[in-house]
Amino acid sequence: MLSIGVDYYPEHWNKEMWRKDADLMQKTDVKIVRMAEFAWCRLEPEENNFDFEWLDEAVNIFSEHGIDIILCTPTNCPPLWVYEKYPDSKQYSRSGIPNAHGIRGNRCYNSSSVRKLSERIIRRLAEKYADNSAVIAWQIDNELEAVECCCPACSEKFRLFLKEKYGSLEAINLTYGNIVWGGEYSSWEQVQPPYGDYYEGWYNPAFINDWRIFCRESANQFAWFQADIIRSIVPNAVITTNTWLCENTCDMHKMFSRLDVVSYDNYPTTRLPDDKNALYSHAFHLDLMRGIKKKNFWIMEQLSGTPGCWMPMQPTPLPGMIGGYALQAFAHGADKVVHFRWRSALKGAEMFWHGLIDHSNVPSRRFEEFTELCGKINELKIPEDTVIKNDIAIIMSFEQEAALRTQRQSENFHYYDQLKLYHDGVTSLGCGCDIISEHDDFSDYKAVIAPALYLTFKSTAERLHSFAENGGTVILTNRCGVKDENNNCIMKPLPAEYTDMTGCYVREYDALGYDKATISMNGKSYTVSCWCNIMQNNTADVLAVYSDRFYKGSPCVLENKYGKGRVYYSGVIGERDFYRDFLAIVLKKAEIEFIAGLPRNVEITRRINTDSEYIFVFNNNNCDTDIDTDFYKGRLTPFEFYIEKVMNT
Amino acid sequence: MLSIGVDYYPEHWNKEMWRKDADLMQKTDVKIVRMAEFAWCRLEPEENNFDFEWLDEAVNIFSEHGIDIILCTPTNCPPLWVYEKYPDSKQYSRSGIPNAHGIRGNRCYNSSSVRKLSERIIRRLAEKYADNSAVIAWQIDNELEAVECCCPACSEKFRLFLKEKYGSLEAINLTYGNIVWGGEYSSWEQVQPPYGDYYEGWYNPAFINDWRIFCRESANQFAWFQADIIRSIVPNAVITTNTWLCENTCDMHKMFSRLDVVSYDNYPTTRLPDDKNALYSHAFHLDLMRGIKKKNFWIMEQLSGTPGCWMPMQPTPLPGMIGGYALQAFAHGADKVVHFRWRSALKGAEMFWHGLIDHSNVPSRRFEEFTELCGKINELKIPEDTVIKNDIAIIMSFEQEAALRTQRQSENFHYYDQLKLYHDGVTSLGCGCDIISEHDDFSDYKAVIAPALYLTFKSTAERLHSFAENGGTVILTNRCGVKDENNNCIMKPLPAEYTDMTGCYVREYDALGYDKATISMNGKSYTVSCWCNIMQNNTADVLAVYSDRFYKGSPCVLENKYGKGRVYYSGVIGERDFYRDFLAIVLKKAEIEFIAGLPRNVEITRRINTDSEYIFVFNNNNCDTDIDTDFYKGRLTPFEFYIEKVMNT
Amino acid sequence: MLSIGVDYYPEHWNKEMWRKDADLMQKTDVKIVRMAEFAWCRLEPEENNFDFEWLDEAVNIFSEHGIDIILCTPTNCPPLWVYEKYPDSKQYSRSGIPNAHGIRGNRCYNSSSVRKLSERIIRRLAEKYADNSAVIAWQIDNELEAVECCCPACSEKFRLFLKEKYGSLEAINLTYGNIVWGGEYSSWEQVQPPYGDYYEGWYNPAFINDWRIFCRESANQFAWFQADIIRSIVPNAVITTNTWLCENTCDMHKMFSRLDVVSYDNYPTTRLPDDKNALYSHAFHLDLMRGIKKKNFWIMEQLSGTPGCWMPMQPTPLPGMIGGYALQAFAHGADKVVHFRWRSALKGAEMFWHGLIDHSNVPSRRFEEFTELCGKINELKIPEDTVIKNDIAIIMSFEQEAALRTQRQSENFHYYDQLKLYHDGVTSLGCGCDIISEHDDFSDYKAVIAPALYLTFKSTAERLHSFAENGGTVILTNRCGVKDENNNCIMKPLPAEYTDMTGCYVREYDALGYDKATISMNGKSYTVSCWCNIMQNNTADVLAVYSDRFYKGSPCVLENKYGKGRVYYSGVIGERDFYRDFLAIVLKKAEIEFIAGLPRNVEITRRINTDSEYIFVFNNNNCDTDIDTDFYKGRLTPFEFYIEKVMNT
Repeated sequence: MLSIGVDYYPEHWNKEMWRKDADLMQKTDVKIVRMAEFAWCRLEPEENNFDFEWLDEAVNIFSEHGIDIILCTPTNCPPLWVYEKYPDSKQYSRSGIPNAHGIRGNRCYNSSSVRKLSERIIRRLAEKYADNSAVIAWQIDNELEAVECCCPACSEKFRLFLKEKYGSLEAINLTYGNIVWGGEYSSWEQVQPPYGDYYEGWYNPAFINDWRIFCRESANQFAWFQADIIRSIVPNAVITTNTWLCENTCDMHKMFSRLDVVSYDNYPTTRLPDDKNALYSHAFHLDLMRGIKKKNFWIMEQLSGTPGCWMPMQPTPLPGMIGGYALQAFAHGADKVVHFRWRSALKGAEMFWHGLIDHSNVPSRRFEEFTELCGKINELKIPEDTVIKNDIAIIMSFEQEAALRTQRQSENFHYYDQLKLYHDGVTSLGCGCDIISEHDDFSDYKAVIAPALYLTFKSTAERLHSFAENGGTVILTNRCGVKDENNNCIMKPLPAEYTDMTGCYVREYDALGYDKATISMNGKSYTVSCWCNIMQNNTADVLAVYSDRFYKGSPCVLENKYGKGRVYYSGVIGERDFYRDFLAIVLKKAEIEFIAGLPRNVEITRRINTDSEYIFVFNNNNCDTDIDTDFYKGRLTPFEFYIEKVMNT
Repeated sequence: MLSIGVDYYPEHWNKEMWRKDADLMQKTDVKIVRMAEFAWCRLEPEENNFDFEWLDEAVNIFSEHGIDIILCTPTNCPPLWVYEKYPDSKQYSRSGIPNAHGIRGNRCYNSSSVRKLSERIIRRLAEKYADNSAVIAWQIDNELEAVECCCPACSEKFRLFLKEKYGSLEAINLTYGNIVWGGEYSSWEQVQPPYGDYYEGWYNPAFINDWRIFCRESANQFAWFQADIIRSIVPNAVITTNTWLCENTCDMHKMFSRLDVVSYDNYPTTRLPDDKNALYSHAFHLDLMRGIKKKNFWIMEQLSGTPGCWMPMQPTPLPGMIGGYALQAFAHGADKVVHFRWRSALKGAEMFWHGLIDHSNVPSRRFEEFTELCGKINELKIPEDTVIKNDIAIIMSFEQEAALRTQRQSENFHYYDQLKLYHDGVTSLGCGCDIISEHDDFSDYKAVIAPALYLTFKSTAERLHSFAENGGTVILTNRCGVKDENNNCIMKPLPAEYTDMTGCYVREYDALGYDKATISMNGKSYTVSCWCNIMQNNTADVLAVYSDRFYKGSPCVLENKYGKGRVYYSGVIGERDFYRDFLAIVLKKAEIEFIAGLPRNVEITRRINTDSEYIFVFNNNNCDTDIDTDFYKGRLTPFEFYIEKVMNT
Repeated sequence: MLSIGVDYYPEHWNKEMWRKDADLMQKTDVKIVRMAEFAWCRLEPEENNFDFEWLDEAVNIFSEHGIDIILCTPTNCPPLWVYEKYPDSKQYSRSGIPNAHGIRGNRCYNSSSVRKLSERIIRRLAEKYADNSAVIAWQIDNELEAVECCCPACSEKFRLFLKEKYGSLEAINLTYGNIVWGGEYSSWEQVQPPYGDYYEGWYNPAFINDWRIFCRESANQFAWFQADIIRSIVPNAVITTNTWLCENTCDMHKMFSRLDVVSYDNYPTTRLPDDKNALYSHAFHLDLMRGIKKKNFWIMEQLSGTPGCWMPMQPTPLPGMIGGYALQAFAHGADKVVHFRWRSALKGAEMFWHGLIDHSNVPSRRFEEFTELCGKINELKIPEDTVIKNDIAIIMSFEQEAALRTQRQSENFHYYDQLKLYHDGVTSLGCGCDIISEHDDFSDYKAVIAPALYLTFKSTAERLHSFAENGGTVILTNRCGVKDENNNCIMKPLPAEYTDMTGCYVREYDALGYDKATISMNGKSYTVSCWCNIMQNNTADVLAVYSDRFYKGSPCVLENKYGKGRVYYSGVIGERDFYRDFLAIVLKKAEIEFIAGLPRNVEITRRINTDSEYIFVFNNNNCDTDIDTDFYKGRLTPFEFYIEKVMNT
């Protein structure tokens, strides 16, 4: 059954409170508690001197209350004695000096000291709780990032990474085009991390691409190193790590390929934007998480109150948000939703990152909504084997994201935006969609949308070709096919390796940035901005043309028959309506059912198993919204869900 | 008698000019000159080699012209040979490296070299002028700040400070909640200043609170160390230091407790804001200065022309500002107003920080206004024993300010704004108010306003309780009672220790930031923003409720009888009109007289002694303003004062 | 004949492409190729091991195609082995630590290693191609900047520079006014570069002035050192360096005094501003380049596609821009226009700095426009001995620019803006103007405009006086005469040394910043902002007065007869119309012909030799524009040129 949990830090509270809290959790029907995340300094207060007594006690209390436990490896925050005794354990910034301690997450993944000491504490922890049936899963570290550590160990490992990848300096020089600014390596010592605080665009993009791959790989290795230790002791351990989208996001597809479950820290905004074109739904993030392992996932931290720490406090969650946003996660494939956190901390930098219960320890409106949520979810009894099946997939690639971050294409070009606009378009038609890796198999889908597929991986190109040839529908967009896999430009008209599929090519492009242009599709006008491709048509049908600028009349959205399938190419970046209307054309031809006329921000999803289907209708608006579909006709209040169980026939 | 002076740097000018300047000062009726502020390198050009001849000559010239002298200790700018010979004398930034010399104010307060060398020069200076009756006062250093020096000496002293305060690492770990991010100290070496350029909100707030206390204490100690030297030689010395509000403001209440007079560098803006809700009057600052020692104060630097140095030049003072702003200082309790500076410097970084006389040395409009001012003040003959008595006090706390700076509550939450809005409200009703320390005695007042009393000091809470019990009126606001004195949250409904007084508590809060909400009070609507408390009433009367948002209808401003007194709680941050109207309700019930219907930005103050009372009416608008009160009916031109002497009867 | 070239990097492409590219260039009628700019690491892959074979081959191919070659010294990018073996070769930032390698332009001009190694490679290059008649010119380095290197060698050289300039520390202390913040030097070791990341305005302005002179001088010396080596081997070498306006612009007047030709990297914006008052024409820049040596110049890099590297990509050049902007350069005195670059790079940080041919290697719209341009320019056969003669000169001074950058006068005061506004005014009247050094001879002109002549050089003041005395027209503006040549203020009413000429002086000034004021001239109103001088008239005629603010009615623009000439003083900074109307008054009295009623952004220039005159009419608008003059009546499309040859009679 789907279940709800909370993040709890016994070490933050007097022991007397543990039992009281467990009582209330039990009463509220909380099923899971996550623990021990930052507790290394309590578990090993001095080197090789361990103390598990307090954790034992906490684990016992909660398991006695029928609450399952997810235990964390505490490696995010090594004790200060680690940094003091083993100075190599610290991360170094691009300035080439070690970061000061005092903030979390400062351990170097490649430091041999960190590895040695981490192994010891993880081993102890695993041994201790290997046979404790209350411990249902293990979380590695916390919010791992592909940190750009520039310490000596990382520098050396980066050099080895390049040696293995290229074999020789000549090969690196050739691949990077180091000659361009006369910077060819002539010795391995010259190969260094990107020291200096230069603007990102100043660095060689192929070099930065490798550096980022290396940094993501370092995070992967650190996660896998921990998983291996746990598995060596707890062979059937369910292992996860709580991930998020950050400045230096890990390659989640790769990292989780060797872990058991994806879990995500889910903090949708509490401030709805005034701009009707601004996207705020976290449905995109949730679909992304489900797509990482193409299976259901967990929420390890779920919005419970206003956040505030490295930013000032934000507006409080609106009425309905606590329940609505948790149900949204379930509706998109979460099996467990663990709220961060049970009670707001009284101390520490995160004291204003609010939990379900306020500092006062007096449960308030948000806790009431949480209680109602727990009731609802336990009442619904939705089995974990219900899964989500969609005909449409959007490709999300961490490689692409990093490359497009290094070289901003235009002033307001953001990779995620490109994906979110298509995701929103699909959603607005009442359809679900998967967000998958470009290295995944596409054959389960009827339509694959590949926005800004900037780097070209041979295998991706081949699979997209054969997918279309075999009858699939593909949508490609501007900035597809720009680069080879090393982040260098390709000497072909864009979209380069995809031009045969699209039946058209880019004659010229215009990086509009914040400027605007207008296009016309089916007699309707749409505003576009950011980037305009001026297309030369070969064999395609023109769906839309520009209606102003010097390329007025030039095609910008085209449809091409390719094999048994259809390939669409959009040379523009538009507003929300464009995506809805464009996708309605696409889905109709692809014979994918959709709902026309849904109000904005209404989200419909389905979880299915062999017996039954659960239909979820979510009003993700802060106003009452009338919905009129075959399966539901009615009014939903702000953030309200309509959930219906239908038996399979 | 109140008197006017100028800041003069003889060392900037040829000696021939000294006498000419003194002649003109005498003619203009200038009474005071401040000297020697940055002159150490001229007084001790090489170590232990002193030259006082030029200063003697300058002192003689001015005293011969009947002008009193305030002498400065020159410690703000040690000679470059100090930095060269004693590298420990420099401040270190958070990066852990010494700041480059070349800019002023770079001495470390805790450096033993700085202490040793400062003592020597101060001792010489004091001995030299101990018996010179022209020297009426001593200024220590210049604009002391609670500098965050991270040098080895400061680090060590910080450790000692914590050792004394807490006794053990265990106590520190407990107080800070170091466990939260797994950063418990296990050795004293791990205790360090907040190295690194992290965003402020990333640090542990209790740790930063102590660090800031330590930095403020270091500044205090440096000031007192100097005062002690001077007093050991000049027992009756009148000692001050010129203070200001800056990034790292000193704890003025504490620092001046061991000095004789408060002096302030008063630079009101020369650009009046277009937004009618933006506050610009320096009346707040002046009342703050008077409240520091609860007695009259001095202005050591008064606006004389457009400023410009670390910022581009600003608009020139408008006609009337030179006189109006100086009189405003007198009207709020200044006894001496020393203008910065006699003449603009021809050289150095501050050359565009304009003095009364321009670079041309041709007295111009501003000097004419200054001359008129001198005439007026000398004609008024207001005695220094006239003081200001008010029934209303606003609490200003440097502890609260620092804590609220560390953790910004919402995007546009600024502590000073909270105080200024109340101060403006009181002013708009024609009343005066004191701005006092929370550690002061409240019993002289009828009403005490305590905005954002965020940290809770036991003694403050007790005195506020007994003040109300005994019939006083107290106003508390949102963010009162949030923290204990260590900057940790309190496990009680807010306002925590004050809830019994307010008769209501905070059910929930909403950190609106720049968003807006609306409230209704007495049938009138007001816009509020930044922060909204949703209140639960127990025993209070509701004065205002929200009229929109999800908490529409919830109370937000309440009045509670407590003992013989009344306690008001405002859960909102509003625009100017709200404070005027709210305070009119409060003052009426507290039987404090006020004037309804005063035009905006008209300020009324009174100086009183046993014989007589001086009423000041100030038009702090850049337009003619009609005033109609019992004591004055007429039109004032921009920045004009009406001053009336009334004999006590 | 005027001719067109391209920048070409053979080392970026396979050798097979060289010949293909040369074929296409030949076909397109390209006359020049620039090569070898960043190729040191290929020419000397390890120390003292040279490889010129590839360059020989490239040079041969292009010369066989009848294309001339400009060769570059490759010193902008020393090979990485230089930085590795000779750590002193790197620049140091103000933090006092060496910059990381990996980005271009990181060599220290004063490093003895850089000098030694540069000499060797330049010598080899020069010897190699000394007798190759295809090599028509030499470019030194690339975009030299007056880099603020703070390395030990530069520090020491700076000290020597000051020793030579001042002789003693006493003289420096006196000049800088080091006493102001008590920072008098007492040993030479205390003299250092401006270490630290302080806001610029915090430093002593006279010190920064010297530091900047030193940095500009270091760049000069580095350029001259290279020129001397080349000349010692190729006595008749034509030597240039490609310059640009950047943060730390070189003193172009001085630097090019020892080089043969000025060349400029010309990148006009591709995004035309919406604000009609925003200036975007590069005519100003081109006139500036012509003025540096008062002779025709070259464009070494000309806009060929959208730029993108340290900033995101910008809009693509509009139709007409490729040709129009190149012709604009010729119209303002360019003899050669070399486009950057032939083809966009596939690799390296600048891959999105687009060339004429896109990455695809398929010539597109921009290349078509380029082809048309080449045809046109080769057809026009305009001789290089046609030159531009103007009656009006605007003074541009790199000394003034640096000083006004150090101390921003008001929030929106920018030196270049002051010049551009006058340049635009002259242009709008159909006139040409020269932009000259203040150290040039003025006697060739009828009118000299000297905006913001902030520092006062005795010789400049004398020549302006005698110019006016002898009948010339001079325009002076606010911020003229503020400082002496050491960047210290002058103790005289402004404009100080010019007051006798202007017949009026500054009574007071008001640094408005973004605020606005209104003036009235000839019954017409103009908005002014940024800075207002309130003038006291002595002997002048008042042309304009303020119509608001407290100085309403005060004169702000005046005309004074001085000797046989006229001197105008403008105390305001206005919008475009003010300059056009003010200059119409000035030119009429100066008997300089102009065209009234020209549409905005139409630019008229003339190139003349003994036989003939070429009239250029340029529509620098992105819309059709009707023009009605004596010599041309018609409509020009966006960026279109009308060019007419008139035989001298």
